[in-house]
Amino acid sequence: MGDRNAQGPNPGKEAAGVAAADLILDGMIVGLGTGSTTAYTIAELGMRVNRGLGILAVVTSYQSQMLAIDAGIPLTTLAEHPVLDISIDGADQVDADMNVIKGGGAAHTREKVVSHSAKRFIVVADESKMTGQLDHFVPLEVLPYARELVTGTVTAMGGEPQIRLASKKDGPVISDNGNFIIDARFGVIDDPASLAKKLSTCAGIVEHGIFTNVDEVYVGMNDGSVEIRTLDQR
Amino acid sequence: MGDRNAQGPNPGKEAAGVAAADLILDGMIVGLGTGSTTAYTIAELGMRVNRGLGILAVVTSYQSQMLAIDAGIPLTTLAEHPVLDISIDGADQVDADMNVIKGGGAAHTREKVVSHSAKRFIVVADESKMTGQLDHFVPLEVLPYARELVTGTVTAMGGEPQIRLASKKDGPVISDNGNFIIDARFGVIDDPASLAKKLSTCAGIVEHGIFTNVDEVYVGMNDGSVEIRTLDQR
Repeated sequence: MGDRNAQGPNPGKEAAGVAAADLILDGMIVGLGTGSTTAYTIAELGMRVNRGLGILAVVTSYQSQMLAIDAGIPLTTLAEHPVLDISIDGADQVDADMNVIKGGGAAHTREKVVSHSAKRFIVVADESKMTGQLDHFVPLEVLPYARELVTGTVTAMGGEPQIRLASKKDGPVISDNGNFIIDARFGVIDDPASLAKKLSTCAGIVEHGIFTNVDEVYVGMNDGSVEIRTLDQR
Repeated sequence: MGDRNAQGPNPGKEAAGVAAADLILDGMIVGLGTGSTTAYTIAELGMRVNRGLGILAVVTSYQSQMLAIDAGIPLTTLAEHPVLDISIDGADQVDADMNVIKGGGAAHTREKVVSHSAKRFIVVADESKMTGQLDHFVPLEVLPYARELVTGTVTAMGGEPQIRLASKKDGPVISDNGNFIIDARFGVIDDPASLAKKLSTCAGIVEHGIFTNVDEVYVGMNDGSVEIRTLDQR
């Protein structure tokens, strides 16, 4: 999971997370992603809400729910507001075509639902997440009942599946939806859209961590500057 | 749900369900589907087990678990036996190419996992289920969190989504996996494999009810005879 739980400030993450907060205008319904970079966005938005910004937010995990409540951001749900103006979320890896792998935090299923519910989907990431071609493992949320089937299917596809084990509980990680996470290594992923489609059709996989619907990426550099990548620049 | 809960014997269902039991040989690991036709298979297998047939079964729902235990069939799990010799299951509708719609009993997700875990997947159905082209609604198991997204997605695809309401509890049906069921009407389905792929890629859909992996169909006629359809005869 890399530095997911690393302590202390990260200039790139903070720069990207804070810069993306500028996209949030008064009256918007906002999707709030999960992870250490999005946490900076949530903290920044909380300060702006406390200064008068009027927004409602839909969270993607218990983590972002807790952070948003702590920050004072009023929450809503997709049931009340099925269409979001914008969603901001982190990434485990971002390629040159803005394909993204997510799910290191085991939240990619709800993150994907929220991203597809938003008119505009922004990813925030520090520069260490950027790569030419994706080669990060692909997190798969898997019905516990289907663990062996998915393990076999991933292996047959040439991947290396590994069930994610928890560190503060015995046995496997359980997602916010009550499922297992299988991390599948495929080496360098030449065609992310094709792999995404294949994984989508596998019985027992609730959702995979490949996102191909990113509109913009806010890349936070180690010097604290931010580069914005859009579809046009690909 | 048609005659899912109808009382009394159905000659076609019984004929198909019992005939399929002949496929189960001593020593096999068997997947047991859900529904009124498979219930005949389970009852018949229970009698054979009581007469000495040695099998182990993996169930696809609480219903088939209860029926199998009542019938005296020893159970196992996909965790212990990831590869099944055969799986037998019912259907809501079967077309001329042996594409099948399942999920009227809200059990299609585990049924699909089991069917893909089996070397051979047999469908049992009475003749009322047979059709030239599929036009039955497609049951979708949906994360509660994603109800609105999936409703919107199905509508955008030209379908008519309807959340399935329970009759012995208030509000929606909750599946054995804790999710909602959205029944999506698409009229006549010209290309089931294509629709299946589209539905697979929709965020928030855990599993759809289109099965394209059927090896044989045991069709029980109203006169009590059984016709066996295989891939070769398509």
